[in-house]
Amino acid sequence: MKKIINDPFEVVEETISGILKAYPFHLKAVPGSKRALMRADGTIDGKVAIVTGGGSGHIPVFLGYVGHGLCDAVAIGNVFSSPASDDMLAAARAAHGGKGVLFLYGNYGGDRMNFDLAAEMLEMDGIETKQALVKDDIASAPPDEIDRRRAVAGLFFAYKIAGAMAETGASLAEVKAAADKAIINTRSMGIALSPCTIPAVGKPTFMLADDEMGVGMGIHGEPGIEVSKLKTANEIAELLVTRLIADLPFKSGDEVAVLVNGLGATPPEELFIIWNKAHDVLSDQGVSTYRCFVGEYATSMEMAGASISLLRLDDELRQLLDAPACSPFLLQWS
Amino acid sequence: MKKIINDPFEVVEETISGILKAYPFHLKAVPGSKRALMRADGTIDGKVAIVTGGGSGHIPVFLGYVGHGLCDAVAIGNVFSSPASDDMLAAARAAHGGKGVLFLYGNYGGDRMNFDLAAEMLEMDGIETKQALVKDDIASAPPDEIDRRRAVAGLFFAYKIAGAMAETGASLAEVKAAADKAIINTRSMGIALSPCTIPAVGKPTFMLADDEMGVGMGIHGEPGIEVSKLKTANEIAELLVTRLIADLPFKSGDEVAVLVNGLGATPPEELFIIWNKAHDVLSDQGVSTYRCFVGEYATSMEMAGASISLLRLDDELRQLLDAPACSPFLLQWS
Repeated sequence: MKKIINDPFEVVEETISGILKAYPFHLKAVPGSKRALMRADGTIDGKVAIVTGGGSGHIPVFLGYVGHGLCDAVAIGNVFSSPASDDMLAAARAAHGGKGVLFLYGNYGGDRMNFDLAAEMLEMDGIETKQALVKDDIASAPPDEIDRRRAVAGLFFAYKIAGAMAETGASLAEVKAAADKAIINTRSMGIALSPCTIPAVGKPTFMLADDEMGVGMGIHGEPGIEVSKLKTANEIAELLVTRLIADLPFKSGDEVAVLVNGLGATPPEELFIIWNKAHDVLSDQGVSTYRCFVGEYATSMEMAGASISLLRLDDELRQLLDAPACSPFLLQWS
Repeated sequence: MKKIINDPFEVVEETISGILKAYPFHLKAVPGSKRALMRADGTIDGKVAIVTGGGSGHIPVFLGYVGHGLCDAVAIGNVFSSPASDDMLAAARAAHGGKGVLFLYGNYGGDRMNFDLAAEMLEMDGIETKQALVKDDIASAPPDEIDRRRAVAGLFFAYKIAGAMAETGASLAEVKAAADKAIINTRSMGIALSPCTIPAVGKPTFMLADDEMGVGMGIHGEPGIEVSKLKTANEIAELLVTRLIADLPFKSGDEVAVLVNGLGATPPEELFIIWNKAHDVLSDQGVSTYRCFVGEYATSMEMAGASISLLRLDDELRQLLDAPACSPFLLQWS
């Protein structure tokens, strides 16, 4: 796999440096940490601070969702690895505006361990801390073992909803409740067409034959449901939406927000071809689309493939979804 | 090359259909054409209409730049092929708000022929028409043959500047002057790491060895300056910025807007690593960056690679660059 990089061991540092040079009005380094960023407008007094974090290699996840109406700070790990708890702690201390901290992140073992540790240390500072873990990938565990599910692109909906709630001046309990409401109403599933290569490893994370796709594969190449022959866009859309609907389950009359996410190397045209069919499959089941996002919202470097995420809406979630947001990767007026 | 499609001959129709289902509040079909879209808020009376068009396979170029502060309508061709003049004509007639039409598009033979034909027919309707052709790719012809240069990602700057000028209520001559000012001050150059495959053809447009890159290659795989060994990100940034600076030439004291564009399959992390160095090369030459855009602004389906575009700014261009814009692919507050 060809990569446009310098030293494979400097990929994360150089990415962060490039981000800071690109968006000085949006993001700044957290004092005392080389692996944490925060909103350029600094600590927002009287607002619950939402702090996220996770491995590199998924831009815009995680650091792309720091900004008004989203997260306040982020800790950054190596490619596909948890950040260190020290960086989570530095991010949380810098972002804390006197109203507590919500750690909002994906359900992966390493991240959980480190965020737990950071939360303990924050409590010792006298800073109230709660956690909300995104677990939207239905291919990663059956419905009765939902706490084993990992996070994929559904992170985006959790950030958007919790971030909007925090901007209203809500309490830590209320922001956590909004995050949890987004999480329990979100379901995602994807397919992969090609692997990606961790720069410091230099070999692909998995292999697929020229006529194969991985169904339900994770964003780090974790095995999913099966490896099958490559299907058409319509078959893929139908497969994913049918599985998603059955899982929550979504019912006729439900209204949803949809995210059709590209994993990195899939052209926008193909995402719209998937959505063209997915829209109709939803509609045929009586599920209407309130708002639709199509693009790269959670990537896996040069992996080809796509995922679909559905968020079941009610009046509160609709309002929070529509609230303004501003980061270099997500700008929303209304 | 694996693609998530259905029928290779239905790719454009299904993409357009998906786009319309995704963004009903932004875009609508032009009446009487299956290959033209316009702003969902319809014809804007008393505003110069900016109409663009070109081949499919480059999203967000071209249809992604239709909206407030950008273009008013777009004609859509087959993958990497000019739209038909009938669709250009339909787009222009639908968008015309009584103040004339600017055809703003890339300098390719097929497009030029068809836009010329459409312009003639519009003149017969009594609709005043002017044209501005983007020719930003410095690798496609030497400086003394600038009219032979083709358009690449620099289209984005031309849309942004001309679109902002049109929203001020400016005359057709003034909007064309703004477009031309953006065009003569924009320079782009890129590198490609891998080819892409036109769906209806089924074979890659060109080949590169595992350790090669195409320097100055066009967004359809047109030959550039040379095929060389794959260089590091820093070497690529230095090569591109040095060539760009020498071409206009940009001088110490100049202020620029920069676009670091991904061609489709290049991960965002790599674009920021390129920008990390490109920023410093510019800075070392005394060229300061006013605003920076990093992401996929003009793609070539699943082609891997990147380009850098520079727009030399003055007070007028800075103001137009900062004006609000709103399309599903570009939302800008200020």
